[in-house]
Amino acid sequence: MINNFASHFGVNNVPYGVASSDQHSTAQCVTRIGDEVIFLSELSKLEPFVGIRAPLSTIFRESTLNTFAALPRDIQSQVRSAIQKAYKGNLHQTHSENIKDVTMHLPVHIGDFTDYSASASHVLNAGEAIQGIRAFPPAFHKYPVGYAGRCSSIAVSGTPVTRPLGQFVGDYTHPKKNIIFGPCRALDYELEVGAIIGKPVESGPRLNAKDADEYIFGLVLLNDWSARDIQGLEMNPLGPFNGKNFMTSISPWVITLEALKPYEVPAPSRMQSVAEFMDDPKSINYDIQLKGEILRKGARSMTCTVGFETMYWTFRHMIAHHTIGGCNLRTGDLIASGTVSGELKHEHGCLLELTKNGKEPSTLSDGSELYYLEDGDEVWYTGVVGDGSAGVGFGECTGVVKPAQS
Amino acid sequence: MINNFASHFGVNNVPYGVASSDQHSTAQCVTRIGDEVIFLSELSKLEPFVGIRAPLSTIFRESTLNTFAALPRDIQSQVRSAIQKAYKGNLHQTHSENIKDVTMHLPVHIGDFTDYSASASHVLNAGEAIQGIRAFPPAFHKYPVGYAGRCSSIAVSGTPVTRPLGQFVGDYTHPKKNIIFGPCRALDYELEVGAIIGKPVESGPRLNAKDADEYIFGLVLLNDWSARDIQGLEMNPLGPFNGKNFMTSISPWVITLEALKPYEVPAPSRMQSVAEFMDDPKSINYDIQLKGEILRKGARSMTCTVGFETMYWTFRHMIAHHTIGGCNLRTGDLIASGTVSGELKHEHGCLLELTKNGKEPSTLSDGSELYYLEDGDEVWYTGVVGDGSAGVGFGECTGVVKPAQS
Repeated sequence: MINNFASHFGVNNVPYGVASSDQHSTAQCVTRIGDEVIFLSELSKLEPFVGIRAPLSTIFRESTLNTFAALPRDIQSQVRSAIQKAYKGNLHQTHSENIKDVTMHLPVHIGDFTDYSASASHVLNAGEAIQGIRAFPPAFHKYPVGYAGRCSSIAVSGTPVTRPLGQFVGDYTHPKKNIIFGPCRALDYELEVGAIIGKPVESGPRLNAKDADEYIFGLVLLNDWSARDIQGLEMNPLGPFNGKNFMTSISPWVITLEALKPYEVPAPSRMQSVAEFMDDPKSINYDIQLKGEILRKGARSMTCTVGFETMYWTFRHMIAHHTIGGCNLRTGDLIASGTVSGELKHEHGCLLELTKNGKEPSTLSDGSELYYLEDGDEVWYTGVVGDGSAGVGFGECTGVVKPAQS
Repeated sequence: MINNFASHFGVNNVPYGVASSDQHSTAQCVTRIGDEVIFLSELSKLEPFVGIRAPLSTIFRESTLNTFAALPRDIQSQVRSAIQKAYKGNLHQTHSENIKDVTMHLPVHIGDFTDYSASASHVLNAGEAIQGIRAFPPAFHKYPVGYAGRCSSIAVSGTPVTRPLGQFVGDYTHPKKNIIFGPCRALDYELEVGAIIGKPVESGPRLNAKDADEYIFGLVLLNDWSARDIQGLEMNPLGPFNGKNFMTSISPWVITLEALKPYEVPAPSRMQSVAEFMDDPKSINYDIQLKGEILRKGARSMTCTVGFETMYWTFRHMIAHHTIGGCNLRTGDLIASGTVSGELKHEHGCLLELTKNGKEPSTLSDGSELYYLEDGDEVWYTGVVGDGSAGVGFGECTGVVKPAQS
């Protein structure tokens, strides 16, 4: 894939990431404008940053964004303005490298990862694909249903995913009780958006959904790789485990809530009454248009285009629900939306939905049939706000499927 | 509770923990013999440690055991011998404090926490209590079923647990669809044993169950506090979340596999054939006798005595299953057994089983009835190997229930 997404990183974006390069051998905090990756520890010593009350040069030398993400929002806002000023004044050039010359790393240390299932359409489509029934879980309209994911196997975009080995029912289209062991036969992606926690949420005081934006540093793209056959056997009763924990990919650039603010759109209305702490009369999503493609044998095929504004539960709701029982959130925690899906076939954010659990294949542009992912397939996923003209996007989240270990 | 468990910490135990005190204001690595907590950074400068090829004094100054836990097993074994030699030679005294004068901290940094459900009796008893059916989940005899837990809310023994708020069906004994919000009405404990990963397991090469001991640093007691009403509503389909993530308690002392080695006992036989990587012909558990009590209004009541040797799946199996799909394990990761339960009523390791989900109360020694935990109840949990005479035990894992936040 040669696509640097320069158009996603206009001066109104100012995303944050962690990069290293030949010139900058230590991974450290960066931003990006166009194709230029700007090393912030160096940049933040310049005039536009004077007066900002934080040891920025030290903070940006760190190998994760966690310390910066935990700073007060007003300081983060000052930094954003200073970066824009430095860029417009051409002060950044000696502290920049081209994106093609740097290696991007995981942007944050993630102490806990939570994956929700916040899309009404995904829940209905997935239930139909597996059980032939379009029905909501019992709690769906009261709160977003979620589960804890695995942190150790979260990888940055570009990391290949190895087809997992595992145990599952032999024929996933005609379930019988013959449990076998071998390479996953139903490898899937799930196109999601993740929120990175900035200011931590302490255990104790009740946090209402309407006040939860304060704790979100920014958003990333996320691919929740899923082994449907392994997952299908293990789900009852404790939920997904080996069907998910072999890898989760995230995009390297964190898009801040300040950059996304102009693209707030109303979230869907609640279909049932909710508890007071979950009530958010001005509930919002973001106008993020997501696109998924599969590259098979060099041929690109679009598999999904869907808008994030369709999500039934918002990140504010997810955070309020997460913390209401006393669970704290720490800076760097990753909270994912679950598969972003709409009702229409081209809006289905995973193959479980698109191919009805491998029973109704799609035809790809190379003429082959798509049931589930094959070795060598590359899943490629991107997102941009609005119509893309404002220059605020996420870049890519991608990964190639490698054969299972022997 | 005044019980220092000196008898658990004979010279054959040599557990590891992290402590601070007035004299040692920085939390650091310690061991314990009898009532004496020995500060290892200081001790390891003495003669018995000469020749051990690791910078022990530096490693033991750290605020977690992670670096030590990752050392090769033969070095850990040399350290154990050196500690015993120093103790027997009375070299430890100037580097020790009485247990009552120190504060114990979480012994390791935990990057991921996995909770299994490895007891056959627990699965059957819990199913009966909730649904009136004694049946195994589909995968139970092929591998231990587990889920990812929450790391941020893991606390060391002695930390109070606040009754969680949450949403649940109003009357958990007669489920209807009236979902309400409020303080948990069915607060439970789960008496478990946890394994701490020492040497990390990298993603990739297949790890067979029979070889998995190499990756276990040691064991702790664990109380997986559970809000049964919150959990009951959310479980379908993604498993436990807010019903568990408000807190998990672990004991402060890690008991090494070397200390436990003499107490290996055969694990139960497999009831069905298993995949080759799960096969462990000399499958072992440990002869750990566990005891749970509730203190209500000053009166102690025994609620559980059960042996860990009854667990159907062993930690070796849990690690092999965990990693077979490509999920890596890092030093400090916590893997818990799930509730340790036997068939008999006095062997039930949680109130869900003991009181049949609050429908069949027990009478406590203060004359009150035990349905689920009440505010002020203290759950007190301990474990010792064999008959206790060898001086190898876990000390305690305890916590008092505080009222819900208003």
